[in-house]
Amino acid sequence: MAVIGVGLIGGSLALALRRRGLVGEIVGVGRSTGNLALARRRRIVDRITTDPAEGVREADLVVLATPVGALAEVGKAIAPALGPGAVVTDVGSTKASVLRDLEPVIPAHAFLVAAHPIAGTEDSGAGAATADLFEGSRCILTPTPRTNARALASVRRLWRAVGARVIEMDAEDHDRILGAVSHLPHVVAYALVNAVTSFRKDALDYAGGGFRDFTRIAASHPIMWRDIVLANRESVLAGIDATLAELSRMREWIDRSEGRPLEEAFLKARITRRGLRPPGAGARRKR
Amino acid sequence: MAVIGVGLIGGSLALALRRRGLVGEIVGVGRSTGNLALARRRRIVDRITTDPAEGVREADLVVLATPVGALAEVGKAIAPALGPGAVVTDVGSTKASVLRDLEPVIPAHAFLVAAHPIAGTEDSGAGAATADLFEGSRCILTPTPRTNARALASVRRLWRAVGARVIEMDAEDHDRILGAVSHLPHVVAYALVNAVTSFRKDALDYAGGGFRDFTRIAASHPIMWRDIVLANRESVLAGIDATLAELSRMREWIDRSEGRPLEEAFLKARITRRGLRPPGAGARRKR
Repeated sequence: MAVIGVGLIGGSLALALRRRGLVGEIVGVGRSTGNLALARRRRIVDRITTDPAEGVREADLVVLATPVGALAEVGKAIAPALGPGAVVTDVGSTKASVLRDLEPVIPAHAFLVAAHPIAGTEDSGAGAATADLFEGSRCILTPTPRTNARALASVRRLWRAVGARVIEMDAEDHDRILGAVSHLPHVVAYALVNAVTSFRKDALDYAGGGFRDFTRIAASHPIMWRDIVLANRESVLAGIDATLAELSRMREWIDRSEGRPLEEAFLKARITRRGLRPPGAGARRKR
Repeated sequence: MAVIGVGLIGGSLALALRRRGLVGEIVGVGRSTGNLALARRRRIVDRITTDPAEGVREADLVVLATPVGALAEVGKAIAPALGPGAVVTDVGSTKASVLRDLEPVIPAHAFLVAAHPIAGTEDSGAGAATADLFEGSRCILTPTPRTNARALASVRRLWRAVGARVIEMDAEDHDRILGAVSHLPHVVAYALVNAVTSFRKDALDYAGGGFRDFTRIAASHPIMWRDIVLANRESVLAGIDATLAELSRMREWIDRSEGRPLEEAFLKARITRRGLRPPGAGARRKR
């Protein structure tokens, strides 16, 4: 097995599969030799290299776990070195862009299966990887007409083996849904933290538990999230526009001291929020 | 002691003081007889009434714990019944409006001390009250030139006794700071939940831990928060404007696929967020 990008997700998957004895040798591929050395020290991987082609040469399974903006380039780099029957899968938070970038470059004798494990924390790097990250989580697979059925089944088994509930859907559906409940909130959290900093920096000394929870995701990896929102541009823009509209509406009510519509809007949000299904163990978080 | 509004904060303070043996009889005052009955059943209060004047008649200490929008009316209702030397304090999340509403109506023989315990969860009502809510929390007092020094000292002792660290500051400063780190995030969280609902309701089935944390405060009490944002209108509007500006800027970068400024903005927010002081036990939260 080759893991390209031995960070929180790639590293955790390697640890989870190894603990269950489901993999032989694991090769770690990355650009940061410091992170790779840490991954080897933590026994997440057996062998390391900074050359993607070398890393995947003998692999039956290749897991692409870099930021999604790097996948097109990584795909091209590994394509010539993929062996016959190799299964290539990813863990990217957007799926249409990943398929667009990878389907054309993966050779016919290898099999691409696009996947998105919904797990993670705001931490990143091999140091943050844990073997139980996916226990009770969900993993979304987005097969296309070109997806090989046996490769799809094997990736499904893989995610089930590490504790995930596997769901299949269309890549465009995936991107619209995740754009709404994940990508959009990240952009808003980043924006809010910068807004507060810009007009009242000293206020942060008084941040309570509400602010802390609200902005936890603003501590997420900037490059990873830059890539995600650019790769899922259309959905994220639609979400930002809806948020700007809703926030502007509330602004007007506050400006005109109109309590009734404000209370109704707050109540509507409360009812929606309370209606969320209770989190599974998969909604992992660090404190 | 009389507690007007036996909800999460008023009820918890009553429980905390009683556990330490610091109060005699506790009278609970409210409009909802259901909530009052629950407060008595939980032994949060000894006696209940829906008449504020009757409730405060023999009280040495009166704690106003209603939504801040109701304080002007409550102040007028209790003023004629306050005994000589009675200390009147509140727990409101805004302070300038509370002083504006209460200072003119509290008679000269009673003493007003404005206070804001920074504690709470998104739950509300007497059923949510706990005796340890304020352990390790902070409580901000906002004395004015008219505040009686002995009454101020006794309210300070009271909050210290239940485990809070007491800070004193100007009411305007308090409102600007809390507007930024508490009132603004609530408005944004309410707006985001409604925005997601408006354009992609089914997405909520896929909400992960990030969304859950991000929107926890959107489950907060609508009337309480309507009153707070209207009472602290100016600060909240400034915060909303800064957020709209920041979010619009990010929208443009995403629209034009400009990765560099986006990444820099995300990185800036991450550094700010990581720089937050670790939460004390006072940053209480429910899961």
